[in-house]
Amino acid sequence: MQDINVGLIGFGTVGSGLATVLHDQAERLQRKTGLNLRLVRVADLRTTRLPDFLSGTELGQDAGAIINDPEIQIVVELIGGIEPARTFILQAIEQGKHVVTANKALISQHGAEIFRAAAAKGVEVGFEASVGGGIPVIKALKEGLVANRIDALMGILNGTANYILTRMSEEGIPFDAVLAEAQAKGYAEADPTYDIEGIDTAHKLAILMSMAYGANVPFEAISVEGISHITPLDIHFAREFGYRIKLLAVSINHGDHVEARVHPTLVPEHHMLASINGAFNGVWFTGDEVGDVMLYGYGAGKLPTGSAVAADVVDIARNIHHRCVGRVPALSYLPQHLGEVRITPLEAIRCPYYFRFTTRDVPGVLSAISGILGENGISIESVVQKKRHEDNAVPIVMLTYEADEAAVTNALAAIDELSTTVAPTVKLRILSDGRA
Amino acid sequence: MQDINVGLIGFGTVGSGLATVLHDQAERLQRKTGLNLRLVRVADLRTTRLPDFLSGTELGQDAGAIINDPEIQIVVELIGGIEPARTFILQAIEQGKHVVTANKALISQHGAEIFRAAAAKGVEVGFEASVGGGIPVIKALKEGLVANRIDALMGILNGTANYILTRMSEEGIPFDAVLAEAQAKGYAEADPTYDIEGIDTAHKLAILMSMAYGANVPFEAISVEGISHITPLDIHFAREFGYRIKLLAVSINHGDHVEARVHPTLVPEHHMLASINGAFNGVWFTGDEVGDVMLYGYGAGKLPTGSAVAADVVDIARNIHHRCVGRVPALSYLPQHLGEVRITPLEAIRCPYYFRFTTRDVPGVLSAISGILGENGISIESVVQKKRHEDNAVPIVMLTYEADEAAVTNALAAIDELSTTVAPTVKLRILSDGRA
Repeated sequence: MQDINVGLIGFGTVGSGLATVLHDQAERLQRKTGLNLRLVRVADLRTTRLPDFLSGTELGQDAGAIINDPEIQIVVELIGGIEPARTFILQAIEQGKHVVTANKALISQHGAEIFRAAAAKGVEVGFEASVGGGIPVIKALKEGLVANRIDALMGILNGTANYILTRMSEEGIPFDAVLAEAQAKGYAEADPTYDIEGIDTAHKLAILMSMAYGANVPFEAISVEGISHITPLDIHFAREFGYRIKLLAVSINHGDHVEARVHPTLVPEHHMLASINGAFNGVWFTGDEVGDVMLYGYGAGKLPTGSAVAADVVDIARNIHHRCVGRVPALSYLPQHLGEVRITPLEAIRCPYYFRFTTRDVPGVLSAISGILGENGISIESVVQKKRHEDNAVPIVMLTYEADEAAVTNALAAIDELSTTVAPTVKLRILSDGRA
Repeated sequence: MQDINVGLIGFGTVGSGLATVLHDQAERLQRKTGLNLRLVRVADLRTTRLPDFLSGTELGQDAGAIINDPEIQIVVELIGGIEPARTFILQAIEQGKHVVTANKALISQHGAEIFRAAAAKGVEVGFEASVGGGIPVIKALKEGLVANRIDALMGILNGTANYILTRMSEEGIPFDAVLAEAQAKGYAEADPTYDIEGIDTAHKLAILMSMAYGANVPFEAISVEGISHITPLDIHFAREFGYRIKLLAVSINHGDHVEARVHPTLVPEHHMLASINGAFNGVWFTGDEVGDVMLYGYGAGKLPTGSAVAADVVDIARNIHHRCVGRVPALSYLPQHLGEVRITPLEAIRCPYYFRFTTRDVPGVLSAISGILGENGISIESVVQKKRHEDNAVPIVMLTYEADEAAVTNALAAIDELSTTVAPTVKLRILSDGRA
């Protein structure tokens, strides 16, 4: 049986998950591939001893020992972050190694450089685990949906944010309290900025868009709004209108430009994405031939992510064994056919909106607000006005029909200037007809 | 650019869908693969003229002209049914052609013979479109989840049955009326037996099980119960208890034996599978590493199914081009490592149950029924008894905790013998904790 030698840089949660999966599944993978996937070396700065089941694996602190080991064919990078991960990966490629990574920050920001280097050296880069944890979403997009123009892609791509919104929705407790609880339970990082501010979701959206459209989509081009300003009140009103609030990644393909945005979104409760709760992720594709397809599963975690990394290792091992490296291009399209995409400016998008106005409870307020909306061409679909709060401020909630973001910005600026407005208006976008 | 020549046997809905997809996506597929996928010949008994966009394609009635054309590398069989599809596929394999098919009846009953012949000739057989229409479920199972033991698989695999149950649930109208409506709209066949009696679903379950467990699972080993006896009353009661009724394919892996059954099932309304409505399909896998993964999309239709067939054609074309035919074995495991699975006898399964008793409204009925259940070790989780009907018959609905199917069979036989029982008891199985 042919050996395929794997080196692993980084032995944290996902790294030890990969080691566990390769060990657990060794015999199964032999029966499926005829190959012996050997984890020969691990490099990690903090690990002093490997688990007993890795008795044949060498442990060191030096990634270079892996990168320069002539026996190693596949280098797995699971340290995360930009540096030194980027340097290690480029060095491994330079040494003719294939690379597997789960590093969404790196791939979304330095993917172009890495894929160019890999194509030049004729090696592969696998990054299935960078989006959607254990869900085989990248393989589905690149291979299963190969014969489709992608007209829309949407996703709940961050388990921490989705867990927080789900708990807020179920328990009616405020964001800060749920975050603190999630941190205490280890579900959220000490610094949760990437998760709750939508940055991690945007990294993943950039990666999906790059493959969907055959272009290196810069992460910086994505409009990002997080969930830290979402209140139980908005979740409550959204439910009353039949919606769940989700942190959604959205890209709609308009042909000569594509939308690219991450923001809390009112999802109709009967939509599949509304049913994705807790730490689960879901990715939604609309293809011009296949229609709507959704994949759902654990978006993170030691073994689910280990499963996805292992699938990449197997894919590359098969290609080594069958001498067909480069069988499927990294970004779906052959490097010479990668293009560019123009990102729709955020002010040019159109969608339905949710507004929560906070006003003094005096006559004429509703008329003033709806007048300004009307002047800006924004049509109201429904309104709820509740009885006054203790402080004499009243929430007025409106859902609109599809409207221009630019018009909405203008209208809300004018409404927030009204003497009757006592707090800035909350604005959330609504997913309608499968599109947000 | 290398040409890959494709011949198509069968130009019905899916066949013309494939032709459309290959035509629509020709340039995109060239940019992704560097290959020119040419539909060079179509054989169909009823088609006298191909659409204009197929001007370069030859049309005939003789499948042999495709099977024996030395230029053709991939033969796509889309006529359905057992014969002559089986013979055509075996002849094509004998001629050294790769084969792509959407034929679930054939693969589930003659897959072993076909895959053996293909392995002997060193050609591939693609059958992505045989399960889940456009959803890339077979690729996900064979490749994305390669590093997993499959502990459970479940699916809503027949769009016609799911459409009927969804309409019954939404409108409260009886099975026969919905079926007639579905037939009038072309959503159901003139002879809907395969769809509504669960046979089509069982074909697909057999295919999924074969790949999940690495064994040729005979379709005949699957216990099958259809939906034609489901009434609006049961759908109503199920909803009252928080369930939706779905025609579910279920296989639970117990290690030395595996369950294999298709039946109407009460699915908790918060479960993702409960949200799959209308003609959509969903396939649920539980892997020992990845946990729960679900794929969702159109389970049928011209272009969705065409998309899946095209994905198989592309996969094989890449393998031809890169000379790596046989890269992924047909049934996940290498032919020499295929084993056998023992199917759990239906009477040995355990799950929670829904019973609807129809009894005369006299004292002591509830006590008699619950006594018999207790004697058989069946614990009642909840009961609803409604006011009497016009005919003095009362429905009593019970949900049980997990119970043995054999005990349930005994208990219901005894209950149906009671002088107070006026109609046979309705028994449905319940999905609990992710397992039915």
